[in-house]
Amino acid sequence: MRKLTVALGERSYPILIGEGVLDSADAIAAAVNTPRVAIVTNDVVAPLYLDRLTATLARAGIAYDSVVLPDGEAHKNWQTLNTIFDALLAGHFDRSTTLVALGGGVVGDMAGFAAATYQRGIPFIQIPTTLLSQVDSSVGGKTAINHPLGKNMIGAFHQPQLVLADTAVLNTLPDRELKAGLAEVIKYGLIRDPAFFDWLESHIDKLLGRDPLALAEAIERSCANKSQIVSEDETERGVRALLNLGHTFGHAIEAGMGFGVWLHGEAVGAGMVMAATLSQRQGWLSMQQYERTVALIARAGLPVLGPRLGAARYLELMAHDKKVEAGRLRLVLLRDIGDAEIFSDVPTADIAAAIDACCESA
Amino acid sequence: MRKLTVALGERSYPILIGEGVLDSADAIAAAVNTPRVAIVTNDVVAPLYLDRLTATLARAGIAYDSVVLPDGEAHKNWQTLNTIFDALLAGHFDRSTTLVALGGGVVGDMAGFAAATYQRGIPFIQIPTTLLSQVDSSVGGKTAINHPLGKNMIGAFHQPQLVLADTAVLNTLPDRELKAGLAEVIKYGLIRDPAFFDWLESHIDKLLGRDPLALAEAIERSCANKSQIVSEDETERGVRALLNLGHTFGHAIEAGMGFGVWLHGEAVGAGMVMAATLSQRQGWLSMQQYERTVALIARAGLPVLGPRLGAARYLELMAHDKKVEAGRLRLVLLRDIGDAEIFSDVPTADIAAAIDACCESA
Repeated sequence: MRKLTVALGERSYPILIGEGVLDSADAIAAAVNTPRVAIVTNDVVAPLYLDRLTATLARAGIAYDSVVLPDGEAHKNWQTLNTIFDALLAGHFDRSTTLVALGGGVVGDMAGFAAATYQRGIPFIQIPTTLLSQVDSSVGGKTAINHPLGKNMIGAFHQPQLVLADTAVLNTLPDRELKAGLAEVIKYGLIRDPAFFDWLESHIDKLLGRDPLALAEAIERSCANKSQIVSEDETERGVRALLNLGHTFGHAIEAGMGFGVWLHGEAVGAGMVMAATLSQRQGWLSMQQYERTVALIARAGLPVLGPRLGAARYLELMAHDKKVEAGRLRLVLLRDIGDAEIFSDVPTADIAAAIDACCESA
Repeated sequence: MRKLTVALGERSYPILIGEGVLDSADAIAAAVNTPRVAIVTNDVVAPLYLDRLTATLARAGIAYDSVVLPDGEAHKNWQTLNTIFDALLAGHFDRSTTLVALGGGVVGDMAGFAAATYQRGIPFIQIPTTLLSQVDSSVGGKTAINHPLGKNMIGAFHQPQLVLADTAVLNTLPDRELKAGLAEVIKYGLIRDPAFFDWLESHIDKLLGRDPLALAEAIERSCANKSQIVSEDETERGVRALLNLGHTFGHAIEAGMGFGVWLHGEAVGAGMVMAATLSQRQGWLSMQQYERTVALIARAGLPVLGPRLGAARYLELMAHDKKVEAGRLRLVLLRDIGDAEIFSDVPTADIAAAIDACCESA
């Protein structure tokens, strides 16, 4: 078992990574300071892991109840969030309650936002069950729901008390979701950790084969990178924006295709290729490093071309992104593998040309 | 113009109090660090003060747009909140936006919660237009909406950049609402400021006559008291609970009658009499101080008796209150005028008897 601490002053918390951490009653008992917990999960994860979690809680001597949401990004909205509030209020859960999110990013985002806002904030624990959520949502405290006019538009920053990232639960993860998770893993190499990028080049096959030690290493290094960034910039005023490499393009893909058609990680994969292409064309990323970037994304089984929505439609969708500041599109681009920077003055025509070059043929 | 600073470290902010502060373009320009603002108001306040606010913004050189909500506590729900999000997204408001709440407590709570959660948090300014919101919502950063199963159940702590409390806008406030605001003013005297209670006894008629200097003094001393409490306990873990004097009883009255039938301040007035009665019967508050308490609440034109819902119904509704911790009802009671304390071991039969003694006859 590996342990990483996210350093955020009095909001610091541990992430435990490894096979079987879902069974560690001691870790849960240490993190829960309330007499009751309410588990939030979904109808895909509940049959697989809810019994194991409740057995752990029982061993820890903690009373629990659970709310099972429908699975999928399409349900990451106010109506579904409200079913959590309904259950908490109907069950007379007061402020002395810890929410436990058991599931992927959607469950984590919704349970986290419910915890951030139920009675103005109660503690919560994240038990991410997808690679994407283990490396991404575990660190940073971002919680949100979608609005019909935009993804993650309504949310809050709310840090968990504990994160349990069990590599064994990844054995039931569909291949497509495993690959989608690797997009965010590769991102950490690209934006700030060239040695990790090298390691990924030599371990990508083990990761695709779900080798538990390789997975634990990738999760730990991803979380460590994100943790360092978040510690410097908890509420995303500065350096944290680097985490959006590929995401502004990616959000346009997700929104343009309809949320849920492309997985988030798939859209980020194609989005990172767009960012790398633009970086190379602007003369910032060398052709060799550009080719390594695209090759690793391809080897991870991720799409390297976006859907052909047309550059104009991409730009329109990108203008709605949260990363827009005072009307200017801010893009994370690469100077080198492991060296990213934010640019807000790239000519629109150049952005459009890079998008066109990175889309599927008609 | 009086100026008070709420000391919360990097979240500190000023409250400006006095006649005409709504016109101070300089104060607004100093507090707004974004190119655009979105004003949230309601259909009662907009015809009275929206033009004055937009004129002030124009003088400050700040672009604005506005969202007009329907008036009333009945609209403090997700559906109305969503109209704010709809307008912000449709108007392409990004994170470089300041929300300005122009209205009473309902507008402030909803605009504040919208600001706390829109794109995970944007800055906001409070311009409270009722006495209640000037002395209560101005300080503390509490924001919320109601849930069908409970008042203020969904919310966040989010501090404003600036509060403008203009005593002149109180001239258009209905008498009933002015009196309701005085309930919270009296509360500050009761829980921690005996000198302010004395001052209120000698100035209550001037306050009811809307004397601007008396109002400014009452607002400033109320905000100063609340500010000291909130600085000690920003997220309501300890001493801040004293602010709930009369509120647990009062919430039961509001919920039991249907929200909006009794004004919040009216329910708090009757609730403070219940708390004082219980305090006197437990032998903590002297009969003389008890009588002074009831007399001042009565002179302020507030109800001193609650509706006859039956003690059992009161207790049931009180059990739903957020102030319940781990299943125990925590009540703020008085040792003396200016000296309140939290009790969680008062026998239920004694609470019930005090409620029965303080309800209207059948």
